[in-house]
Amino acid sequence: MQQILLTILLLTLSLSGRAQADYPPLFASTLAGAQEQVDAAMEQAFLVPTPVDMAGGYTHEVHKQNWKTLENAGALYRLTGEEKYAAFVRDGLLQYAEAYPTWPLHPTDRSYATGKIFWQALNDANWLVYVSQAYADIYDWLEPAVRTKLNTELFRPMADFLSVENPQFFNRIHNHSTWGNAAVGMIGLVMDDEELVQRALYGIPASELPEDLRDDDSGRIVSESGRAGFLAQLDLSFSPDGYFTEGPYYLRYALSPFLLFGRALAEKRPDMNILAYRNSILGKAIDALLLEADPRGDFFPLNDSQKGMSLYAPEVVKSVDYGYALYGRDPGLLSLAREQGSVTLDKEGLLVATDLAAGKARPFQPHSIAFTDGPDGDEGGVGILRAYGQGDEQTTLVMKYSAQGMGHGHFDKLSYSLYDLTGEVIQDYGAARWVNIDQKGGGRYLPENQTWAKQTVAHNTLVIDRTSHYEGDIRIGENHHPDLYAFRADDTTFQLVSAVSENAYDGRKLQRAQWLLQDTAFEHPVLIDLFRATGERPAVHELPTWYMGQLMRTDFGYTTENILQPLDSAHGYQHLFLEATGRPDADMATIEWFGNGRFYTQTMATESGDEILFVRPGANDPEFNLRRDPGFLLRRADVASSTFFSVLESHGSYNPREEVARDPFGTITGLRILVDSEPYTALEFTHQSGTTWLILFSNATADPDQEHTLNINGQSYQWRGVHHLIKQ
Amino acid sequence: MQQILLTILLLTLSLSGRAQADYPPLFASTLAGAQEQVDAAMEQAFLVPTPVDMAGGYTHEVHKQNWKTLENAGALYRLTGEEKYAAFVRDGLLQYAEAYPTWPLHPTDRSYATGKIFWQALNDANWLVYVSQAYADIYDWLEPAVRTKLNTELFRPMADFLSVENPQFFNRIHNHSTWGNAAVGMIGLVMDDEELVQRALYGIPASELPEDLRDDDSGRIVSESGRAGFLAQLDLSFSPDGYFTEGPYYLRYALSPFLLFGRALAEKRPDMNILAYRNSILGKAIDALLLEADPRGDFFPLNDSQKGMSLYAPEVVKSVDYGYALYGRDPGLLSLAREQGSVTLDKEGLLVATDLAAGKARPFQPHSIAFTDGPDGDEGGVGILRAYGQGDEQTTLVMKYSAQGMGHGHFDKLSYSLYDLTGEVIQDYGAARWVNIDQKGGGRYLPENQTWAKQTVAHNTLVIDRTSHYEGDIRIGENHHPDLYAFRADDTTFQLVSAVSENAYDGRKLQRAQWLLQDTAFEHPVLIDLFRATGERPAVHELPTWYMGQLMRTDFGYTTENILQPLDSAHGYQHLFLEATGRPDADMATIEWFGNGRFYTQTMATESGDEILFVRPGANDPEFNLRRDPGFLLRRADVASSTFFSVLESHGSYNPREEVARDPFGTITGLRILVDSEPYTALEFTHQSGTTWLILFSNATADPDQEHTLNINGQSYQWRGVHHLIKQ
Repeated sequence: MQQILLTILLLTLSLSGRAQADYPPLFASTLAGAQEQVDAAMEQAFLVPTPVDMAGGYTHEVHKQNWKTLENAGALYRLTGEEKYAAFVRDGLLQYAEAYPTWPLHPTDRSYATGKIFWQALNDANWLVYVSQAYADIYDWLEPAVRTKLNTELFRPMADFLSVENPQFFNRIHNHSTWGNAAVGMIGLVMDDEELVQRALYGIPASELPEDLRDDDSGRIVSESGRAGFLAQLDLSFSPDGYFTEGPYYLRYALSPFLLFGRALAEKRPDMNILAYRNSILGKAIDALLLEADPRGDFFPLNDSQKGMSLYAPEVVKSVDYGYALYGRDPGLLSLAREQGSVTLDKEGLLVATDLAAGKARPFQPHSIAFTDGPDGDEGGVGILRAYGQGDEQTTLVMKYSAQGMGHGHFDKLSYSLYDLTGEVIQDYGAARWVNIDQKGGGRYLPENQTWAKQTVAHNTLVIDRTSHYEGDIRIGENHHPDLYAFRADDTTFQLVSAVSENAYDGRKLQRAQWLLQDTAFEHPVLIDLFRATGERPAVHELPTWYMGQLMRTDFGYTTENILQPLDSAHGYQHLFLEATGRPDADMATIEWFGNGRFYTQTMATESGDEILFVRPGANDPEFNLRRDPGFLLRRADVASSTFFSVLESHGSYNPREEVARDPFGTITGLRILVDSEPYTALEFTHQSGTTWLILFSNATADPDQEHTLNINGQSYQWRGVHHLIKQ
Repeated sequence: MQQILLTILLLTLSLSGRAQADYPPLFASTLAGAQEQVDAAMEQAFLVPTPVDMAGGYTHEVHKQNWKTLENAGALYRLTGEEKYAAFVRDGLLQYAEAYPTWPLHPTDRSYATGKIFWQALNDANWLVYVSQAYADIYDWLEPAVRTKLNTELFRPMADFLSVENPQFFNRIHNHSTWGNAAVGMIGLVMDDEELVQRALYGIPASELPEDLRDDDSGRIVSESGRAGFLAQLDLSFSPDGYFTEGPYYLRYALSPFLLFGRALAEKRPDMNILAYRNSILGKAIDALLLEADPRGDFFPLNDSQKGMSLYAPEVVKSVDYGYALYGRDPGLLSLAREQGSVTLDKEGLLVATDLAAGKARPFQPHSIAFTDGPDGDEGGVGILRAYGQGDEQTTLVMKYSAQGMGHGHFDKLSYSLYDLTGEVIQDYGAARWVNIDQKGGGRYLPENQTWAKQTVAHNTLVIDRTSHYEGDIRIGENHHPDLYAFRADDTTFQLVSAVSENAYDGRKLQRAQWLLQDTAFEHPVLIDLFRATGERPAVHELPTWYMGQLMRTDFGYTTENILQPLDSAHGYQHLFLEATGRPDADMATIEWFGNGRFYTQTMATESGDEILFVRPGANDPEFNLRRDPGFLLRRADVASSTFFSVLESHGSYNPREEVARDPFGTITGLRILVDSEPYTALEFTHQSGTTWLILFSNATADPDQEHTLNINGQSYQWRGVHHLIKQ
């Protein structure tokens, strides 16, 4: 049935000259936007300036705009049949064919692989990926002589430049190389140049490369596996379930060449069945991208991510459309497409627009999922819990126990972040960078990305002796990863993610378990957090909470500082000002804040001697690169092992237009760790109504069939599996 | 024509039992909302608990909800004719009639005028204002015996309590008293109790009061004028053009009793023609309220205002509806009503909903206006400039040169704030208070309101020798005010507001002139700021700019502090941490920031020795009551007189979904003060295109007919009036 529909669509599309009005609204409006852009460009001279500028500079921006204009013009010819668009593409390409062979390497010399059109070969590859599509659109229309000229004088030289002339760019297992592979492969498919296609798919044979060739991170180009090229990227860039080790911000960027070359191969080399390759890894990567966003659609800012990148970014349109059309027809994706407001100008985008117009859209309601990390799926991962509360409102918890994530990874093992309808509740700092904003270090990573954003204390996870995980050394971090301990999402009212790190600190085992509990006693799902650290040697344990909002009240006294000093000298602590120190005087401490129109109350089990340090980044920040968002550290000194337990409630509302504070207070009146032994931990907390929840947790085995017995204060509890909840 | 329409509407409304479906949509949905609320309340027991709690506590909230439920139920009876609603109101009132006479004063004893139902008589008056309307709705339906009982046992005693028993509450010229006057007058109109109506209109005769009676601010109740009551409030609470000296946040609250009693008088005592009283002062007050909001609809947070209060707050519905129906039928108000999403459940609200349904709405485009302050309009004022740029986008400048504003006034003479589509650009801090949020000092003003929010340095205006205006002493402030110097808004591309303060500092004259310049050279209107301070004695001059956003770059070097200390010890400076000190090394300094998706560049004329201090509130803030928003002070020490000149550009955009920085740089390349003498100042600034603007300003006279001649570098300029712009 779907095949038939696709066939009909393909036939429809082949009827050139079809009027825009015949298309479903979203396709028609996208096409009209492209036409407006191209028509305006056609009124100007088409410029092909000699490359000289860095990103953001004039020649960079002109060539970048050119690839977009050519891509759009090609699509317009394909969809409308109007030859003026084909002629425009042809003439533009001929200008490049005149100029390109005369250009030396880009004069900037700032990259490990300098381009010709741009300062880095990566951008040359971007150009070729998109322009290949325009070239494909007009290829059959071109006179043979022009075709030959473009093939031999522009595209084959460009493909060779991006591959055999730059193996340190082309032959890595890295998202840069994927762009190179896709560029060479896509132009090869257009020109039917089998040599290029094979090179794209399999890389340059290792035997043809110097053995000690290095990339920009000093990694050896000739990998242990000896593999390179697009298929190797598909095998090695993702975990088996599609997770990308650098996180969703980079996946969003990295996915484009995969999808574009993949789609081109599906069309031109159907025998390869690339869409099914590695258990449909492309479809899984799309799923992984779309599932790594908060309830507003913003991607989780894991690792070096700029915040605000979103499911609704233009780059994600093809993930949604290809995900829908090529994999599974999930009607939830149609509502994402509607929100995106545009579709791909191809048959997949047409299918999306058609089905949307037919009313097939359903709400996008992403589910809980644990992603594995590593090519073989055995390097930890990321666990995402989603609870749908009142009015289908989504609360989302992300726990990160992934591998290091290469150069963009953070030292944040077992860290978490929490989101609700209003956005970030407990934040991940993201990267210290303003992408493409020249005023801030040319838009590149800022020094504070290394000294602050990557460090453990910048995350919601345990810091021991004020030293980052893996000593903050990527070489150590790349050799290790935590492991998932348990993930239970079947019971949507009591979901668990738990992971263990044995290597973040020498001689210490860190285990975290987090639950989202949905219960009518609470307005929104409640986050329950258990963090056990066991070791032999006494050490300072500090557990940060980076909350979003304005501190309202605590139930313990604290002393504020009138002179602010950096909290310490390294591992990110040099950037923290100590604003206040609190000393909870009971076995429980409560901190209340207000953010985004809601109240939040975190209730924590405390021990005698615990301190709560209120901190804020901003120290040693000579160029105002850091955001001044508040946080607090629960500090426990001089313990070899320690267990942290807290519950976070979201409740009530306040709108300054009405000035009525609804439910401004938390409802948890008691909270304690009843048992904390090697095999078991038992947690208890009590609601003001008197209702008590008891959570029994097996620290030693997550076997779902294991029977457990635990005596607490003379009462015996039996259960099966990793955890057990008792409400009484 | 309008009279006929109103008559038809009145006739229509008198047909009781009209189905909701017959009403225009907005009226019908508002009515349905009221019905839902009342029907739900009718399923519960109607509770009249003995008063014990403060605001936010149980008995307070129950009685507050009761007045709303009764008001809605009365309206439902009036509009639907269903007797169950009348009976519900009657029975509720009878419960109050049983209880009220037995209640002593509210036990809290925390107010200068303790109430009986609530902790303050003010809230008792709120109750009576709203319940009077419910009583009016069912008055004719009631059996005479019930009417008599309610009149004599509940309402007349309550009216006496709020007036003759609490003259210190009833007889002031103050918004509290207006509630008292309205409450007594409105119930008097319902009961046809002429004594109460007269008391409401004219107050308690001074002769009947002890001469030394004092209010909570120790002010004498018997005023110099000897006047009190509603008419006196109308005469003395507003300036002749409707400005309310405490600012829009308080006007929004204060206006309710004026409008409700005014409307009741218009209906029951048409001979008084109250709507036309004092040149239609009620209409002018409505206008003043609606014109004191930023492009998003948020009220300017002048004086002690909580931010976020808005044109779209429920309390403003009647201002819009009565403004439309009773004054002028401005179709712009209909779009405000649409955005508000509800209307008053009376004939005015019905007219609004009807005209809205008829498509009469037009965009609300408030205009530039200079409001006078003081009952006679001679105590300074507030000047608002609005420029409509691309796509009718509004840029709004507010300069404040008003009187002190009583107890809620700030020491912020000649301060300004700036707004655009994205909200606050240069902010006014507002109040240090979370209204009705119990965790923060019970929702009352926080200590930092006095020590920080009211102080001069918390505002965008000049501070001399780190001392607030009027020495931060309200007793001095109340005796003085700045004066408007010039306001020119006819030429919408070059609008001016200028004011002078002779008293903020002894022996110093402060004069500020601000222009909004609209020119195709700039994407958005540009703010030009000239601040002249003249005196005899050398002093430290510091001019703060409280910008909203993230510092991007400066064109001068600065040194950041790694240990933060309070900048000084008093007048708000004790709350400021010094984060960095810059020393511009040329005669011009530029600061760039990014906020709300836009770039901003402020270019300032500087002198040798000037410093720029980057500061942030947070010092001496023992309960985290202050927001950590950044600011900078342009500091010039040891000068007797000094002139400050700056230009602020808004430009470009950046969206993290697209990561393209459009126009991130300002365009002004040069800026200087060409002439600065007693009679004249000449300012010049240059665009990167080479275009130069020259502004000639007469410091000594704003006479629009005065001819001026000024020689600058050998060239002679002639013009007429206060200022002259030359673009070359």
